[in-house]
Amino acid sequence: MPGPTSPKDGPPPTVKDIGEFGLIDRIARWLPQSSTDVVVGIGDDVAVLRSPSHDYLLATCDCQVESVHFSREDITPRQLGCRIAAINVSDIAAMGGEPTWALVSMVLPEATEVAYVESLYDGMRSALGKWGAVVVGGNVSRSPDRLLIDFFLLGRVSPDRLLLRSGARPGDAVLVTGHLGDSRAGLECLRQPRLDIGPEDRELLLSRHRTPHPRLREGQLLASTGRVHAMADVSDGLAADLRHICAASGTGARILAAGLPISQACRCAARAAGADAVSWALSGGEDYELVLTVPPDGVSELKLLLEKETGTGLSLVGEILEDPSRLEIAFSDGSSHPFPAFGAGWDHFKKPGPT
Amino acid sequence: MPGPTSPKDGPPPTVKDIGEFGLIDRIARWLPQSSTDVVVGIGDDVAVLRSPSHDYLLATCDCQVESVHFSREDITPRQLGCRIAAINVSDIAAMGGEPTWALVSMVLPEATEVAYVESLYDGMRSALGKWGAVVVGGNVSRSPDRLLIDFFLLGRVSPDRLLLRSGARPGDAVLVTGHLGDSRAGLECLRQPRLDIGPEDRELLLSRHRTPHPRLREGQLLASTGRVHAMADVSDGLAADLRHICAASGTGARILAAGLPISQACRCAARAAGADAVSWALSGGEDYELVLTVPPDGVSELKLLLEKETGTGLSLVGEILEDPSRLEIAFSDGSSHPFPAFGAGWDHFKKPGPT
Repeated sequence: MPGPTSPKDGPPPTVKDIGEFGLIDRIARWLPQSSTDVVVGIGDDVAVLRSPSHDYLLATCDCQVESVHFSREDITPRQLGCRIAAINVSDIAAMGGEPTWALVSMVLPEATEVAYVESLYDGMRSALGKWGAVVVGGNVSRSPDRLLIDFFLLGRVSPDRLLLRSGARPGDAVLVTGHLGDSRAGLECLRQPRLDIGPEDRELLLSRHRTPHPRLREGQLLASTGRVHAMADVSDGLAADLRHICAASGTGARILAAGLPISQACRCAARAAGADAVSWALSGGEDYELVLTVPPDGVSELKLLLEKETGTGLSLVGEILEDPSRLEIAFSDGSSHPFPAFGAGWDHFKKPGPT
Repeated sequence: MPGPTSPKDGPPPTVKDIGEFGLIDRIARWLPQSSTDVVVGIGDDVAVLRSPSHDYLLATCDCQVESVHFSREDITPRQLGCRIAAINVSDIAAMGGEPTWALVSMVLPEATEVAYVESLYDGMRSALGKWGAVVVGGNVSRSPDRLLIDFFLLGRVSPDRLLLRSGARPGDAVLVTGHLGDSRAGLECLRQPRLDIGPEDRELLLSRHRTPHPRLREGQLLASTGRVHAMADVSDGLAADLRHICAASGTGARILAAGLPISQACRCAARAAGADAVSWALSGGEDYELVLTVPPDGVSELKLLLEKETGTGLSLVGEILEDPSRLEIAFSDGSSHPFPAFGAGWDHFKKPGPT
């Protein structure tokens, strides 16, 4: 099939050749969004839709594929149920929204024990319940081998609270909630069961990896202040998610490596693994923290507010630059490096899975 | 894990042991629906949700798994894209609703050619466009092997137009649109490429199997009359889908085998395959016609109306009985048989896939 996706020579390009984000860019081109009812369409994690009511309707989906996103040896079905709910709630949280209804599409090998499936649903139900949402439907299908759970979540947000990736402005401070790198460190604990760290650190990191806690209350609170210009959740890694914000906003950004909020447990795990905690914080992904941009004079106020109302820390990790070609990381020794390439964050087609 | 799903002896039950519909029944028990915002929840093909606007929000999902639902040799990517859109639109049609927005979750082997994915989206886009809906988002993930497309579709329906499975009343006539069994006959043409039937019949049946046409306009028109008591689409096979209607309505039903609308092409294919066309019509599944129940005095009027407005035929195929334990098929020789067991219709866990 000739066209813009075909090279002049050689074999036709595959999904691996162009990567996850290259594919998403093309899907956005293949499906031009002409409807005025679509506030945000293809290319974002969440679709924002104008409904007849006052609120916008939010719709997102994310799936967990066995042996790509998880291994049954590493996570209980209840944890897996919590995890898939959390990942989707995090996308709604990043827009300042409120999750409402979920549909679950379950693709199961026929030998799966009913009790396993029950625990999966139990995990989803209890996690969603904490965040005010409920499973209202879905589908079950047979898989010849791997378990796959696809989770579709609806939500709502008042138009004056909606936060998008596209609002960043030059001069904005870049902030992140909580800690970065813990999930990647937890993955390392799974890969290296004998990694030389304390049992409490291990438990913390494993828990952060298996059952991330979406920053729902934090996202809603931040959105309510009217001070935040852009927001996203950190699912692909800070560098990749900030890159998404910059691409949507037409800006560049500088990350200050010294400002990255890295937990003591993560530092210990990185040291024991002979790895770089800063690199985990930048590119590890799956932390499900929030990254946001705010005018510099709003930083102190937001930090105090978030700490007081939710107990969650907010760290200054960089600034938004005017030049969209500048995506750089400044280190305390004065050196500066470009953002890691896309594939260095979580890219489904450029990086092997966690197991 | 002890519990109501575990037997006293023997290995713990698997999904295969209880089947697709046994699993759905349990999911409904595991996830009690307490919210008053949920008009129809777990157990139906479509969730019906009270939104702040006048209309109800409809949400459904359905997936196509390579080597379970399709084989790449048997269907082009464009046809597959049309097919997955059609299957979901059919669920919205069965409620009298209108499809609006879709999210597509694409799980792809990395070696998939970009051009293949483009054709898939092209099929979805053009099919949805015919029915007034649009893809607004989704997700892409890596699959180690098989292609999987999960399709989430939103829609809306005015509360006074909503048709459910649960409205059937004893004495109602059971009607179906179009023809039954064609999709099963098309599958047979794929399985037996040398099946002795004419090329035009073969093309018709293959097309009915690969790219079913949802009865959207028909569903909306039928819902607008106010005469229909219950409706569903024929995805699992007439017997299975009518069984769903009876279970939801607390009724029984009698199907009149002589009334089944079976096309000449389907009869030819069944004869050539040494199979029973009536059995294909009852249990083949994937026809995506509508089955509905109406008071007997409304039959003629609806038949005329549907034929005049859409050109689609409506056939009388049975009646609703008071006794919920009576689910029977009456043959013209005077004999009567119970509905085929659940597994005889399309059950993901009790029947091998089409390829």
